[in-house]
Amino acid sequence: MSAFKRKIRYGMVGGGRGAFIGAVHRIAAAMDGQIELVCGAFSSDPQRSKDSGADLFLPPQRCYATYQEMMEKEAALPADERMEFVSIVTPNHVHFPAAKAALEGGFHVMCDKPATLDLAEAKELAKIVAETGLLYGLTHNYTGYPMVKQARDMIAGGELGKIRKVVVEYPQGWLATKLEDTGKKQAAWRSDPKKSGAAGAFGDIGSHAENLAEFITGLAISELAADITTFVEGRLLDDDGNVLLRFEGGAKGVLHCSQISVGEENNLNIRVWGEKGGLEWHQTRPNTLRVKWSDKPAEVYRTSSGYLSPAAAAASRTPPGHPEGYLEAFANLYRNFAHHVRAVADGVEPDPLTTDYPKIRDGVRGMAFIEAVVASSKANASWTKLDV
Amino acid sequence: MSAFKRKIRYGMVGGGRGAFIGAVHRIAAAMDGQIELVCGAFSSDPQRSKDSGADLFLPPQRCYATYQEMMEKEAALPADERMEFVSIVTPNHVHFPAAKAALEGGFHVMCDKPATLDLAEAKELAKIVAETGLLYGLTHNYTGYPMVKQARDMIAGGELGKIRKVVVEYPQGWLATKLEDTGKKQAAWRSDPKKSGAAGAFGDIGSHAENLAEFITGLAISELAADITTFVEGRLLDDDGNVLLRFEGGAKGVLHCSQISVGEENNLNIRVWGEKGGLEWHQTRPNTLRVKWSDKPAEVYRTSSGYLSPAAAAASRTPPGHPEGYLEAFANLYRNFAHHVRAVADGVEPDPLTTDYPKIRDGVRGMAFIEAVVASSKANASWTKLDV
Amino acid sequence: MSAFKRKIRYGMVGGGRGAFIGAVHRIAAAMDGQIELVCGAFSSDPQRSKDSGADLFLPPQRCYATYQEMMEKEAALPADERMEFVSIVTPNHVHFPAAKAALEGGFHVMCDKPATLDLAEAKELAKIVAETGLLYGLTHNYTGYPMVKQARDMIAGGELGKIRKVVVEYPQGWLATKLEDTGKKQAAWRSDPKKSGAAGAFGDIGSHAENLAEFITGLAISELAADITTFVEGRLLDDDGNVLLRFEGGAKGVLHCSQISVGEENNLNIRVWGEKGGLEWHQTRPNTLRVKWSDKPAEVYRTSSGYLSPAAAAASRTPPGHPEGYLEAFANLYRNFAHHVRAVADGVEPDPLTTDYPKIRDGVRGMAFIEAVVASSKANASWTKLDV
Amino acid sequence: MSAFKRKIRYGMVGGGRGAFIGAVHRIAAAMDGQIELVCGAFSSDPQRSKDSGADLFLPPQRCYATYQEMMEKEAALPADERMEFVSIVTPNHVHFPAAKAALEGGFHVMCDKPATLDLAEAKELAKIVAETGLLYGLTHNYTGYPMVKQARDMIAGGELGKIRKVVVEYPQGWLATKLEDTGKKQAAWRSDPKKSGAAGAFGDIGSHAENLAEFITGLAISELAADITTFVEGRLLDDDGNVLLRFEGGAKGVLHCSQISVGEENNLNIRVWGEKGGLEWHQTRPNTLRVKWSDKPAEVYRTSSGYLSPAAAAASRTPPGHPEGYLEAFANLYRNFAHHVRAVADGVEPDPLTTDYPKIRDGVRGMAFIEAVVASSKANASWTKLDV
Repeated sequence: MSAFKRKIRYGMVGGGRGAFIGAVHRIAAAMDGQIELVCGAFSSDPQRSKDSGADLFLPPQRCYATYQEMMEKEAALPADERMEFVSIVTPNHVHFPAAKAALEGGFHVMCDKPATLDLAEAKELAKIVAETGLLYGLTHNYTGYPMVKQARDMIAGGELGKIRKVVVEYPQGWLATKLEDTGKKQAAWRSDPKKSGAAGAFGDIGSHAENLAEFITGLAISELAADITTFVEGRLLDDDGNVLLRFEGGAKGVLHCSQISVGEENNLNIRVWGEKGGLEWHQTRPNTLRVKWSDKPAEVYRTSSGYLSPAAAAASRTPPGHPEGYLEAFANLYRNFAHHVRAVADGVEPDPLTTDYPKIRDGVRGMAFIEAVVASSKANASWTKLDV
Repeated sequence: MSAFKRKIRYGMVGGGRGAFIGAVHRIAAAMDGQIELVCGAFSSDPQRSKDSGADLFLPPQRCYATYQEMMEKEAALPADERMEFVSIVTPNHVHFPAAKAALEGGFHVMCDKPATLDLAEAKELAKIVAETGLLYGLTHNYTGYPMVKQARDMIAGGELGKIRKVVVEYPQGWLATKLEDTGKKQAAWRSDPKKSGAAGAFGDIGSHAENLAEFITGLAISELAADITTFVEGRLLDDDGNVLLRFEGGAKGVLHCSQISVGEENNLNIRVWGEKGGLEWHQTRPNTLRVKWSDKPAEVYRTSSGYLSPAAAAASRTPPGHPEGYLEAFANLYRNFAHHVRAVADGVEPDPLTTDYPKIRDGVRGMAFIEAVVASSKANASWTKLDV
Repeated sequence: MSAFKRKIRYGMVGGGRGAFIGAVHRIAAAMDGQIELVCGAFSSDPQRSKDSGADLFLPPQRCYATYQEMMEKEAALPADERMEFVSIVTPNHVHFPAAKAALEGGFHVMCDKPATLDLAEAKELAKIVAETGLLYGLTHNYTGYPMVKQARDMIAGGELGKIRKVVVEYPQGWLATKLEDTGKKQAAWRSDPKKSGAAGAFGDIGSHAENLAEFITGLAISELAADITTFVEGRLLDDDGNVLLRFEGGAKGVLHCSQISVGEENNLNIRVWGEKGGLEWHQTRPNTLRVKWSDKPAEVYRTSSGYLSPAAAAASRTPPGHPEGYLEAFANLYRNFAHHVRAVADGVEPDPLTTDYPKIRDGVRGMAFIEAVVASSKANASWTKLDV
Repeated sequence: MSAFKRKIRYGMVGGGRGAFIGAVHRIAAAMDGQIELVCGAFSSDPQRSKDSGADLFLPPQRCYATYQEMMEKEAALPADERMEFVSIVTPNHVHFPAAKAALEGGFHVMCDKPATLDLAEAKELAKIVAETGLLYGLTHNYTGYPMVKQARDMIAGGELGKIRKVVVEYPQGWLATKLEDTGKKQAAWRSDPKKSGAAGAFGDIGSHAENLAEFITGLAISELAADITTFVEGRLLDDDGNVLLRFEGGAKGVLHCSQISVGEENNLNIRVWGEKGGLEWHQTRPNTLRVKWSDKPAEVYRTSSGYLSPAAAAASRTPPGHPEGYLEAFANLYRNFAHHVRAVADGVEPDPLTTDYPKIRDGVRGMAFIEAVVASSKANASWTKLDV
């Protein structure tokens, strides 16, 4: 992949002191030395925004009190100085208005998932993206792992045959008690419907599982039957749930996720079986993809090996055997997005490998999934269609 | 465990030349040198029955043409010579009549699962067992693994707290193509409703998953919503399916099984999470039980270790590090059953550890499960109760 | 494999109440229902021998006070009644005299390893085996695992190319404290030079590692440099050691074993690399053989799969996914040995697959290895040849 | 850990276009957004140096033709503009002269390993470091992994008891053929004694294994017996070797490394056993540390968990379950080093956690190890002391 000729500049919305995912985005952006943070509206508290920016070596005048101010002031800067894209890392309820403001202000957008607070917003956002013609990236970061791309490319290439069954899981255990009552900021907003949306676990991690399944198989979920539960007394949103899946074309499957599965860390994993073979990937050992056959030994595909697909090969930074992790996968989204931003700025066709990152379509699907899960569960797990 | 004073004698129904599970039962029975095969009705073909018996060093006069003949002739032998229990290893449709004949002939019964062809038979059989007062064992063999017993005992002891979630899986891949058309006997009867019952994969392996979940958690499934599928064209029974579970007391879960998951062998596994901890067991690495906690490192329990529960300790034959497998687990059921038979014969109280094997209650639950799965799936995955 | 027409009869030397390995041999012999225990000299204490035999349902007259008596009395029985082979499961110092007595009494011998107390005895025994023309099997049981046979066959077939490097390990932790002082019989004799021989850990488990390496690679160790240690104060024999290996043909390697590696169970494992590929096998997960290549994904070979070598295929009893363990591997030696005994008795050529068990040659190599390790270590790890 | 108030500035020697490790150092330095690359002498070819710098967005005037020029010109810049430390990422033979020039020019040094071309240089360098009072960091990057720090801290805290045995391995397979003849730059200099030093595999990876063993155990290797080999015909340096180890205080062990172990990636791993417990760490699954006990289940320690030591906790960037990899571990060295540089610049005491990175002492030990290995092997694996 050719190097950049200049760093791409971005501003951040959210991610002030004490935030978790903001720091992840900044590391992801910084990793390849090709993207530069130039401004931010890091907090709804103006002083906190300035302090957070100072921690990041930003001059005070580019640490804004609101994202609205940021869009306005940055737009007024010279073209070679102002930010080129906005990274949105706030709680969910701010995703839509901040993205809308950025796009309407003429800035590309990279946004944490889920795309919006509800499906209506997501559809509206898709319209704005289409109208502005600007780039929109969504950090369904697990698709940035090399072996996830390899899985997708093998299935797309027909190596497994027609897909029959998909099992995707995302168990966590960190909310097994009422952590939101203990002052933990990460737990508090995620379990508050006004900030998180209609779903708790399904908004936070279930949507990652849905995205991963659709990304790897290339198949859309056509309908689902969901049984979601709030196990921790007094919690306002679901903390666990089990879903039957039916995919277009006849594949079936199961999706389950949980935040009350004590002792589980971030155990996202997926298994897919087709008529000719199966595959299995676990986020806990992300550099391995196990591929299974009916008549020969299972194979262990590994990151950076010479036999990988071009997209999988492009997604690693070191030779085989140097474990690449969560931050590298996340950085792959930023690297591709920045390449795309540059190509647009330069008026050239982007390398197709670099347009490989989740987009607004993923956001709309994700919100449709969340709403379908909630609706199905309210109707005692009746089948509910995802028709977007 | 104290040794037997004499070998326990048994006869076998089914398991003639070319059968699979019959040989497994015989190895299981023979392993500890405490149980002796003395007769059999190995095949519905009298010559084949004799030939099969000859392979097993049985005298021709104790190789019977039918199980009815076996019950009658054996009953006529002197008490210290005739068989003491009958092992039934036929296809499913023979389970009930053979068990009935044995019990009514005064013999204890050890039967392969599922217990019968349908729930009505299972309930009828339960009555006969109760009326005769004889012993009935069902080879839900996975409950014979030391670490499965350990899991059960830890949950029963409250170590994991109140159970919230259960995920149990049994994927196989051997029926991913229409094997029943190729002359494979094992595939043929399993996919024939007249011999297998109302379900294919769910009768063969789904019922093992159900049994394992109820055994380990000590909780009964109260209702389920099932979506089962026949992926291989022209097959008469299901070869895959996904089920939402609700347990008495509020736990929820997922059960899925498959015989079209290419590359999977016999990948039965279970995960359970309670309010305080979780555990995980896989039949592919059966001597390990992983136990997880919220605030300390996960622990790796291992077969034969000094810290195990009495039942888990009693279920192994060698010191830690000598892998014990499928046949040993199976043998544990036979060993316990034989001890129980002996205690009854001797008119003494059995050691409680030796009555730890699946019984007719497991059989009734299993058949109720199978019927509920089929009924729910026919009703498009509507919730269906298991009220037995 | 064709079935036996009659059971093969054997007698046991050692293995009375409280012994460990005797029970393993009996289970191994019993498993396939083809071998029958008919007599024994189970203990040097005549009453204990009788009691032990009674536990095993033997008539008192065939429970002998000494192995000498057993050879004599059994020889006097009718040919179709007397034992056909002797299984020797005593501490090491009895292996040679009992085997000698059996062979000279006209009986085939199956003996626990190591073959003898020292190399001189092993050479003498090899002569007696040759002179009598009788069969001698040695229970280097790990060679009975299907995947060990597969590894051997792949290397013999040249799939890995010329072998360059071998790493073989056998760590245990059970003697990390002075267990021999606590009344534990297993620990006591193993750490007593008069009963165990010149080496402790190396006699008990190091010789297994040596045998596995030579079995799988087909290469003889030509010389070694050993540094062995007694970590537990007051212990009379080594409890740990590290050895550099040089093989005929230029391969090099490392062998280390230990009985003070706290927390290790029976972690025998081997890795071999050739010019074209590598392979890896662990006794803790014995049904998996990992094979590695330079330019394609590693492959996971599994017990019972259709693609295995004939010897590997013949060594399993159940379809893929039914874990086969230590006892099944051990039973494979007995099953092959019994087939060979029968073929000799019947005066027919044995099926070549059934002569695949360790023999006196393995015993001589093992004793040469033990003596070389001790000699090298005494000479501060100077290179010492194994020239037998 | 408190944030920086300004970015730390560094210059790089080596790491021009096509280099491997230079890019790794730059990612490691960039990851936390706290260190800034301001200049470089990226190549001995002046134009290549400028081009490489341009790829990294550096102005031409700070892309130097030689490291000598860089030291001189940078020293002449204003204090708040010039580089504060030098990162040396050249082949081994340039490590010493470049480090010497940097230190004598008044700059702190971060250097790739091994520290120098031979032991004499390393000792000389240690003197210069001591005399200048400047900071010197050595990128034995594997010590940057959180679970490696945890292992060290548990042993230092006595949890495993007195250490008895250490097994450390570093197998790779990438040089199984004569790659250095195919134009591969990475292979070419590593197998050239003038650039790599007296050892091939042992200089490149064996020294990492030695460093890891001494780091984790806190014990120095006192003597060793090495048998190293060049398997690939015509290669000038060793590509494989096996070493017996003796540590101060009586522990013993084995170290082996290889670059001809086909199919191995970067499989560095270590096992340590003490009187009370054992532990095991593998670079292929770096976020797991397995700890073993004699009387209770093994424990699985995981990165970012609440129960870790302060140093292990400080070494991770994300919550449990977000795999951290090679680049994060590498970045931990840079982060600590930069903190230390800042503390020195600010004239304050550094936080003790931030001085936790390998230093010149590790470099001297490493070179002594390499020389001892080569000397021992030349003397047919005779015991050779490491007395530095």
